[in-house]
Amino acid sequence: MNSFEELSADFNRKFSVRHFPSVPATLYDPDEYFLSIGGKRIRPVMCLMANELFGSINPDAYHVAAAIELFHNFTLIHDDIMDKAPLRRGMETVHKKYGESTALLSGDVMMVKAYDYLSKIDTSYLQKIILHFNTAARQVCEGQQLDMDFEKLEHVSLTDYINMIELKTSVLLAASLKMGAILGGAGKGNQDHLYEFGRNLGIAFQVQDDYLDAFGDPAKFGKQLGGDILANKKTFLVIRALESCNEKQRSELKMLMTSDDPEKVQKVLTLFQECGVDTWASGLKEKYIELAEHHLEQIAAPATRKESLHKLMQFLVQRDH
Amino acid sequence: MNSFEELSADFNRKFSVRHFPSVPATLYDPDEYFLSIGGKRIRPVMCLMANELFGSINPDAYHVAAAIELFHNFTLIHDDIMDKAPLRRGMETVHKKYGESTALLSGDVMMVKAYDYLSKIDTSYLQKIILHFNTAARQVCEGQQLDMDFEKLEHVSLTDYINMIELKTSVLLAASLKMGAILGGAGKGNQDHLYEFGRNLGIAFQVQDDYLDAFGDPAKFGKQLGGDILANKKTFLVIRALESCNEKQRSELKMLMTSDDPEKVQKVLTLFQECGVDTWASGLKEKYIELAEHHLEQIAAPATRKESLHKLMQFLVQRDH
Repeated sequence: MNSFEELSADFNRKFSVRHFPSVPATLYDPDEYFLSIGGKRIRPVMCLMANELFGSINPDAYHVAAAIELFHNFTLIHDDIMDKAPLRRGMETVHKKYGESTALLSGDVMMVKAYDYLSKIDTSYLQKIILHFNTAARQVCEGQQLDMDFEKLEHVSLTDYINMIELKTSVLLAASLKMGAILGGAGKGNQDHLYEFGRNLGIAFQVQDDYLDAFGDPAKFGKQLGGDILANKKTFLVIRALESCNEKQRSELKMLMTSDDPEKVQKVLTLFQECGVDTWASGLKEKYIELAEHHLEQIAAPATRKESLHKLMQFLVQRDH
Repeated sequence: MNSFEELSADFNRKFSVRHFPSVPATLYDPDEYFLSIGGKRIRPVMCLMANELFGSINPDAYHVAAAIELFHNFTLIHDDIMDKAPLRRGMETVHKKYGESTALLSGDVMMVKAYDYLSKIDTSYLQKIILHFNTAARQVCEGQQLDMDFEKLEHVSLTDYINMIELKTSVLLAASLKMGAILGGAGKGNQDHLYEFGRNLGIAFQVQDDYLDAFGDPAKFGKQLGGDILANKKTFLVIRALESCNEKQRSELKMLMTSDDPEKVQKVLTLFQECGVDTWASGLKEKYIELAEHHLEQIAAPATRKESLHKLMQFLVQRDH
């Protein structure tokens, strides 16, 4: 049983090849550029880890893992256009470097390439894998659309926000695990537990992401503190605050969110603390971690084989217990 | 053996269903809207026609036909964003009606849906069909990128222009026919002749499109005459004129192409005629029609079965002989 680091190195070795033709360079160089700026490759490695739970790695799992990673990168290229993001991992985004039309088209062709890898697997489970892949792909698009829709709404309920996060972030993690399990010959019960493990882990991760943006250690977090607050983003914290604080606090928060007050970040953080939103978020994250852990425990595989998924979870949600 | 009209009605009956979920409506209504504005559905019907050359229609051909039509519509939604086109078939484009981000995402999810249909077919030829589908999909993206690249170049050779047209327009027609043939159990030779028939027909069609924009009867053509000239588009006519006319004419054409002369269209048309570009284009179109006809003849199927493809070709290239 390999660790995340070992499988990550293994995946990267196989994935670090040129995926696209050289001509026309104007179309394909942007894709190679974007893949070269890297990433943690969490989803494909999760696919391999889930696969290895049930035996030695099925070579087809590498094809599915590559398809997942290409699909994920395709969504990032297009999301960056929609978000008008100039940087990703400190590097220029594709649309910033090559223009929007090229970014659009390079993204499209990267999605086609994802299906190239997918189609290489044994036909005995090809239809099933495409079904799960496509379901997740569709849901990721739905999540991104809902995220954009929510930015225009004044009120978003916690339930709706969690649903959006599930679609935008969790389902691809969940499906990566499930597809790995299918290729490993896992039964339906184990597939579903892995899916639920990934789904809950994804939500816990996003709660943490929103929390760290407000209360994290900037040195460790690697982003500007309060970035979400400055961008008036709807986050777990904002949504909870608006739902749980008193009338006066709610008015103040709403006012702050539309203001250019130079002390905006500090004032919103104080409000969050007054409303107990920080403690609530820590509890919510714990709740989802426990759900994820529960499903991991239920999987019928030796505990030693589950160890690396458990460690990966702890790493992702920064928990040292 | 059905006619184009019969197969078109047949395809439309099956295709005129809701393809997408109802929620989130902000993501899926744009797709349903775009599909509702219609189109000639030439590619999917070609797939069915090629299939029927070799026997009664394989039900899987309808899945592949639907995938082709969805893929084609996905490219139109994205192309309209890139071209900043306000109208398509006299109706608002998706990005104009719903915004660019939604158009981008609705297009993405339409591509995913195309693979849903594709994955429904019998696994015995699923990998082969995905291979041909993906090759064409990739080439269509390459063609669109080259088209954008060419707009920025001063000189584009006729060879490069034909290559771009093949990729952007012809290969999807060709692949539609070929995939239909594969599902009909056709041998490699017949598959290839159908592919070449479609490829040459596509080029003939584009030569005609460029020709009619300059010399067509506006009442029949349904577009403003000289639209390409006003938009300074590189077309078969411009490229040929620049390659074949004398120095004085070349300078005049280049000057006209960067001018706002109110008589620009008329002056360019006169130049085209002086350089014999109109006659040349008619000859070029005939050349590709003959190539297409040659490949159609070579297909080992009864002449009566080939009749509807022959008629479709004559309809597309407006030839009444």
